Amino acid sequence: MTKTVIESLQENDVKAISRLMSAVENDSQTDETLIEELYSHSLNSIRIGITGPPGAGKSTLIDKLIELFRKNEKTVGVVSVDPTSPFSGGALLGDRIRMNQHALDTGVYLRSMGSRGMTGGLARKSHLMGDILSCTGKEIIIFETIGVGQAETEIIKNADITVVVLVPEAGDEVQFMKAGPIEVGDLFVVNKSDRDGAGRAAELLSDYLKDSVESREFTPEIILTTASSGEGVADVYKKSLNLILQLQKSGTLEKRREKQYLNRVRGAVRDELVQRFWNSQPELDFDSEILLQFANGQSPYSAARYLINSLKLNHD
Amino acid sequence: MTKTVIESLQENDVKAISRLMSAVENDSQTDETLIEELYSHSLNSIRIGITGPPGAGKSTLIDKLIELFRKNEKTVGVVSVDPTSPFSGGALLGDRIRMNQHALDTGVYLRSMGSRGMTGGLARKSHLMGDILSCTGKEIIIFETIGVGQAETEIIKNADITVVVLVPEAGDEVQFMKAGPIEVGDLFVVNKSDRDGAGRAAELLSDYLKDSVESREFTPEIILTTASSGEGVADVYKKSLNLILQLQKSGTLEKRREKQYLNRVRGAVRDELVQRFWNSQPELDFDSEILLQFANGQSPYSAARYLINSLKLNHD
Repeated sequence: MTKTVIESLQENDVKAISRLMSAVENDSQTDETLIEELYSHSLNSIRIGITGPPGAGKSTLIDKLIELFRKNEKTVGVVSVDPTSPFSGGALLGDRIRMNQHALDTGVYLRSMGSRGMTGGLARKSHLMGDILSCTGKEIIIFETIGVGQAETEIIKNADITVVVLVPEAGDEVQFMKAGPIEVGDLFVVNKSDRDGAGRAAELLSDYLKDSVESREFTPEIILTTASSGEGVADVYKKSLNLILQLQKSGTLEKRREKQYLNRVRGAVRDELVQRFWNSQPELDFDSEILLQFANGQSPYSAARYLINSLKLNHD
Repeated sequence: MTKTVIESLQENDVKAISRLMSAVENDSQTDETLIEELYSHSLNSIRIGITGPPGAGKSTLIDKLIELFRKNEKTVGVVSVDPTSPFSGGALLGDRIRMNQHALDTGVYLRSMGSRGMTGGLARKSHLMGDILSCTGKEIIIFETIGVGQAETEIIKNADITVVVLVPEAGDEVQFMKAGPIEVGDLFVVNKSDRDGAGRAAELLSDYLKDSVESREFTPEIILTTASSGEGVADVYKKSLNLILQLQKSGTLEKRREKQYLNRVRGAVRDELVQRFWNSQPELDFDSEILLQFANGQSPYSAARYLINSLKLNHD
């Protein structure tokens, strides 16, 4: 008997995993029943967002965290949406990917998604990649993003906890802005802390967090690390897991997961509405001439209203 | 007689400009007639996108370019969507903004938009900021973005030409990926070229451009600059304007503007569809409990389809 896609995923069949992932990335996966089944098998993993500016050392940190997860017999999947990450695809970085120490470990799966050139659906696709990894039984799913940009923020909103990674540039508050949505951070890492100013950066960050986050459920901890040598990484590991346990006990995790779900529904409503609209008028979508005629010199906003009002929408 | 908003903008009334910009940023500007009129007065400016990774020196380059534009009696508006830019707002960077040398020049207007914490509409809002500046008579509108992220790409698609700013890190091809959508670049700047490896970086970039961009209308030029000392900036200035002239003559500019327009229409259709959907069911949008009940444990994707299919949509 032929195995179903879900069965192949559950057996951690690497070919099945990468085939489905490519189909998702290329938008050629349209089997709604499969997506539905996939989702129902994706509810047991813990999702950790790791975000921070390019060059903060997120990938090195993730690499060392994977080592710790594996020592503790936890399986790990990584969805990387940092176009600058060494995990990221692209021919340019092929060598680095092959060098990856986890490449032969079936308990680890790394998948990168280039945000370059993608015209839409980045968040949806990243979430589905997470679901696929979860379906293969990975206990921990890590989402790596640079944290700046709307799609990137939408991705990180699918995580149970978010770790924000910074580097010490003492007195330079600009770096906190570089980190993207610092409000989402549950745990902060000042990486490359063997450089000057790490302590000062942690201090500034601590003040910044106290001032700016009155609405938080708790005050996030700040950990100094040097991911390249492994220093402090065990602390990140321990505190992340403790935090998740703590959120679980207090009922906060459940609430967060409801929010994650609702965010995904909102994103899916947007994607579905847009797709239905253009599908109902394929000639408009493909023929700029016709669309320009319709628009007829109005502002893009009234052109959009005119299009929506005058076209018969297909709601099936 | 009271002046209309458009008249005040056309008189370069700084209070009127900043009031309308704040209204756009806070989504409190909903007067469709005004937006329409604004658009019709925004068609005469040249729009230049300047994109590149944080720390590449975009803001310094822009600062020097403004000097050159002003020397040549051209007025300039800047819409900055780089959360790490010194032009960017936020209390943290207040001092730097006040230090800005162009602050007292009525021929220059700088506006920054934080992408942090914004939940949607970043591209729409940036485009409208550009329209406002254009309506005030600014001949050159510069859009500054970090180039990574979907909303950022959508912003840059509203520019007539795009300048990609990189730094020399010889042999490090990762930086080309950091630059975001390199495909959109019409002109490349290797900034901080007093550092080692600038020539090598330009060479690598040149090879990269030759290999990767067969579909281009022309081969983009690469300029070495040291924006902090001003070196090479005049070249960027001259070549940008020449390029625009050239595109104008060949009819390419007109085609690009049609594409810009269509991209804005597509974005506006998306925003409008989403807004109408949730407006038609305000209780769903605000009450998570009800939405969760509707979703009823299905995947976010089928929940979205269910919602769209079962709710009566308001198309007015």
